[in-house]
Amino acid sequence: MTDRKEFRDLAEPERAHEAIASLDLSPEPESVALTEARGRVLAERFDAERDVPGFDRASMDGFAVKARDTFGADEADPTVLDLVGEVHAGTEPDVEVGEGEAVEISTGAVMPPGADAVVMVERTDYVDRDDGTGVEIRTAVAPGDHTMLAGADIAAGQRALGPGTRLTAREIGLLSALGVDEVPVRGTPRVGIISTGDELVRPGNPLSDEAGQIYDVNSYTIAAAVEEAGGDPVLYPHAGDDYEEMERLLLEASEECDLVLSSGSTSASAVDVIYRVIESRGELLLHGVAVKPGKPMLIGRFPDSAYVGLPGYPVSALTIFRAFVAPAIREAAGLPAPATATVDARMATEERYGEGRMRLMPTGLVEDEHGRTLAYPVDKGSGATTSLVEADGVVTVHPDTAYLAEGEEVSVRLFSPDVRPPSVLGVGEDDPALSRLLDSLDSPRYLPFGSREGLRRLRNGVPDFAVATGEAEPRSDERASGDAASDAESRSPSTGTELASYVREWGLIVPPDNPDDIEGLADLVDRDLRFINRGTNSGLRTTLGNAVADLAEERETTRHELVESITGFELTVKAHESPARKVAAGTADAGLGLRSTADELDLGFVPLGEERVRILVNPNREEKAGVEELAAALDSTLVGVLEGLSGVRP
Amino acid sequence: MTDRKEFRDLAEPERAHEAIASLDLSPEPESVALTEARGRVLAERFDAERDVPGFDRASMDGFAVKARDTFGADEADPTVLDLVGEVHAGTEPDVEVGEGEAVEISTGAVMPPGADAVVMVERTDYVDRDDGTGVEIRTAVAPGDHTMLAGADIAAGQRALGPGTRLTAREIGLLSALGVDEVPVRGTPRVGIISTGDELVRPGNPLSDEAGQIYDVNSYTIAAAVEEAGGDPVLYPHAGDDYEEMERLLLEASEECDLVLSSGSTSASAVDVIYRVIESRGELLLHGVAVKPGKPMLIGRFPDSAYVGLPGYPVSALTIFRAFVAPAIREAAGLPAPATATVDARMATEERYGEGRMRLMPTGLVEDEHGRTLAYPVDKGSGATTSLVEADGVVTVHPDTAYLAEGEEVSVRLFSPDVRPPSVLGVGEDDPALSRLLDSLDSPRYLPFGSREGLRRLRNGVPDFAVATGEAEPRSDERASGDAASDAESRSPSTGTELASYVREWGLIVPPDNPDDIEGLADLVDRDLRFINRGTNSGLRTTLGNAVADLAEERETTRHELVESITGFELTVKAHESPARKVAAGTADAGLGLRSTADELDLGFVPLGEERVRILVNPNREEKAGVEELAAALDSTLVGVLEGLSGVRP
Repeated sequence: MTDRKEFRDLAEPERAHEAIASLDLSPEPESVALTEARGRVLAERFDAERDVPGFDRASMDGFAVKARDTFGADEADPTVLDLVGEVHAGTEPDVEVGEGEAVEISTGAVMPPGADAVVMVERTDYVDRDDGTGVEIRTAVAPGDHTMLAGADIAAGQRALGPGTRLTAREIGLLSALGVDEVPVRGTPRVGIISTGDELVRPGNPLSDEAGQIYDVNSYTIAAAVEEAGGDPVLYPHAGDDYEEMERLLLEASEECDLVLSSGSTSASAVDVIYRVIESRGELLLHGVAVKPGKPMLIGRFPDSAYVGLPGYPVSALTIFRAFVAPAIREAAGLPAPATATVDARMATEERYGEGRMRLMPTGLVEDEHGRTLAYPVDKGSGATTSLVEADGVVTVHPDTAYLAEGEEVSVRLFSPDVRPPSVLGVGEDDPALSRLLDSLDSPRYLPFGSREGLRRLRNGVPDFAVATGEAEPRSDERASGDAASDAESRSPSTGTELASYVREWGLIVPPDNPDDIEGLADLVDRDLRFINRGTNSGLRTTLGNAVADLAEERETTRHELVESITGFELTVKAHESPARKVAAGTADAGLGLRSTADELDLGFVPLGEERVRILVNPNREEKAGVEELAAALDSTLVGVLEGLSGVRP
Repeated sequence: MTDRKEFRDLAEPERAHEAIASLDLSPEPESVALTEARGRVLAERFDAERDVPGFDRASMDGFAVKARDTFGADEADPTVLDLVGEVHAGTEPDVEVGEGEAVEISTGAVMPPGADAVVMVERTDYVDRDDGTGVEIRTAVAPGDHTMLAGADIAAGQRALGPGTRLTAREIGLLSALGVDEVPVRGTPRVGIISTGDELVRPGNPLSDEAGQIYDVNSYTIAAAVEEAGGDPVLYPHAGDDYEEMERLLLEASEECDLVLSSGSTSASAVDVIYRVIESRGELLLHGVAVKPGKPMLIGRFPDSAYVGLPGYPVSALTIFRAFVAPAIREAAGLPAPATATVDARMATEERYGEGRMRLMPTGLVEDEHGRTLAYPVDKGSGATTSLVEADGVVTVHPDTAYLAEGEEVSVRLFSPDVRPPSVLGVGEDDPALSRLLDSLDSPRYLPFGSREGLRRLRNGVPDFAVATGEAEPRSDERASGDAASDAESRSPSTGTELASYVREWGLIVPPDNPDDIEGLADLVDRDLRFINRGTNSGLRTTLGNAVADLAEERETTRHELVESITGFELTVKAHESPARKVAAGTADAGLGLRSTADELDLGFVPLGEERVRILVNPNREEKAGVEELAAALDSTLVGVLEGLSGVRP
């Protein structure tokens, strides 16, 4: 029963929904103070037990009168009534209004006996008379004018709020009007979270010096997602794949919680252990669901709680949680799905599928020039954490769907109800000046995938802007017709409209004080030095390639021959700082990088040249608000940003 | 400076927005634990300080190999490699992969030196050989397959999250991957709330036996709205209109908070006191804004905090808060406006305006048969608390707008981001059986405005259903052609489709054991008894009117004559239980009502007849989900509801 092959017999997603729906996650109702009731859900119906207001009252400052005494009064022909007293809010009237009499009254005060209307103060004046004070009334009022009858707002016995009502500011207002200070509400499901995996370390603690440990991501992502779904997350210690420990933790959590989630382990052995614990101490309802990602999902129950096992990769775990578990938690809490939980979008690009399994495709969102939402697939492999912040949600692709066309309508289930498309989306070269510039924008998204990828995506029309490097100064016409493809692309008018550009100094980053006395590219070719390059999408690498080609021309040899002589030319790393950090760590003698990076990390620098960084805008999006904000930021802060960094100039 | 006339010089709404924007509400940034960071806003940009993952790792369970050793391997022609060890997640490898060798590896484990790819376990098998264990590889892999390089997720030095990023589950995942457990976030603005008015009592405390006191509504409504806007509300004690006390409270709040709100007082005198305190201890920027409601708004500052005075009526206070103050709190907290803060709708009816002042019109929402949102004005006078729950938000009507046409598009600013249109909207007779029925529906809204108003609105096409009373059994044709207008209406097929009906017993509710020995209507006419009627919109009152007409016919006199002889016939109260409650309180000898109400309140009952309650559906909305839910509830629970009440039958 517990061997891995079981997982090949996958349940349809619909069965997983049914299995989770069959679990009981609902906690007991509870009573909370009115001040803590916002966002909660009424457990029972609420009828008014008193009239609101409890008495007939004035709804204006003015004078309480018998309406018939004012008949015919107007500005030209006012009536004068005897002023016989006053009533303030909060006190019982000690005076009665007789014929020809008026009582001064403030808003909210009890209507004195005998009065049936209020004349607002603006239409009156005091008059001194021999026989006492009078009040001049310059308008006629009808019975009931500027008064509010007892129970007019809500009357005793009336249905005030139904069971299941979510309490927002307005319902809290009604409850307070009724004098309610304790509110019976649906309980909040307690959700225990157990991350499994010997390699996990809690954030805030140091990782071991030996390789192999990573920080726990799922405990925190899932805890936040549980809160978003209306549950109360409880973090338990990590469990390895020891049976006794796992059993103890799972049972402890199941006694304390309405639902236990395990997540974090991607290894079959830990899943096997959980599997065995549930089989012996609870009931396993389902294992393995025909959905990508999320195949290794488990659904079961312990005597005191429900259980769901989530896949280990963060994006997969959050995706499966949102698709299968969050609805059950909301249901148990009595909460509706948030209105912003899904958005309609159109595919920005086409997408093809091979597999006959339901697919939950991580999807990024971008708004087009008309404010319409476009969706594009984000796929870094589900092991990546950052695709969490590069993607906004998930599109469910049916097993029979082999193809999503560009422009096709899709529904995107957002990772959180508060997720929204970025104000502006850029793709391209990883650059420190650009990175600082982005700080002044409101919710930008920038994917530092390199100049080449930036230009490719800009041509496909997905991002708002691309950032690409090229020659610092325009080449002569002769060189411009050369074969440096990505450089030619960056200057092709069809690719984008140049919004701004600046120049950055590049070269070799070396240890402090350049202990190997590296003077230039030739040293990498001629000497036995460990070099670290950037990836092929990086514009900086293209610039280095051009420099190698120039050196080859000079030496009358081939570029290929020189490249073969550089130890590590093919050893690429992801981020612009990564080669420098390898140099700082002593695992390389030189790395490709920028002067600003060398200065930032207190390393040595051997300058090799300058290149121009260009910010190119999607021509259709020039009037999009986020692009205009980017343009304004470039106008106002680019000079300041460049002054704060070394080796850059306009 | 402090006389009331100042308020006649009203500022344009735009100036009020500017004055509030000029106040500084922003608290200092703070540091919170990762587990408390959800919903908060990053105070500064976050660059990765480490590679994630920190090492090259396997992304599948399987065998780490040199890719070139697998070239050519397939199901038909597998390759066998020597198994030289294993690596588990969380441990540093103690083995190297040489040519022709493989190491067993679990997902997430460090790639052993020498290996450059992983073969997934499904494409392998163990083989026992004389020279030790081997592994059969049935597929070729390329370098990098099923591995994730160090920093592939996010690399040290890369920009991870920008300042101003709102932290949802996904950003919390990224922060935990980076090992961050304390997050620098924007502070939460503290907002002090002072309700003014001597008449106010805190919910949970008894009201005085003397008339005049009411429960404080604004403190709680505004506190909830402050939370919704991202602020931290602090409730201060009530203030009367004593200068010293008001000064002490305002200064205390201003020292402890970023913003002080006063609300609750509608009387000019308390506003005058606040006015004087601000003038002497702070600075008054603006008083009185040309917007309805909300004219008496004050904007100012104390040395340590900002100040805004809200109008006193709950709907006005919440409306002004949402329009003017909430945006400033969100801005100070760094939060965007919620995506659900406004909805687009079409006017369900036309609406005319007289005044040349900007108007914030309380608006209810209902969905039509196509799921489109319709808006209708809700106007009970801003003193009403229940219009808070009858309205969903506010439409801003420009001073120049004299007319909103039916079907015209409007933008509705919701009272809370969580507000949504009711699943079904009904208007009509107030009835206990119906009220119980509604409990089984998901978020219904029912406005108990009486049969007549229900039918009128149903004809206007706004609600989904109306509830109206009429004769218990169809009258003879002769009677049906009579002049009982509202009864004829209820049977007009054009008004609505009858979904269900039931019969309720009505009569006179009298004190227990009927001390006055009332036997019927004739006693009210002939004796000096204090009677309480229902309002003219009530179907029950129409039924009573018909019975009086019958009695008049019998006595060969006019209906008018009999009505004149009933003390209190014109004394109407709002809710169906109100007459009974007056009887119970001893302020009336008999009240119009239902047998079920008399039984519920342990009162006596003198039966006068039966009437039929009809549930009539808007013919266009029969297929709306909420209406179908209502129909299903009527089918399944009506009988049970009727069995639980006295004096009703199908």
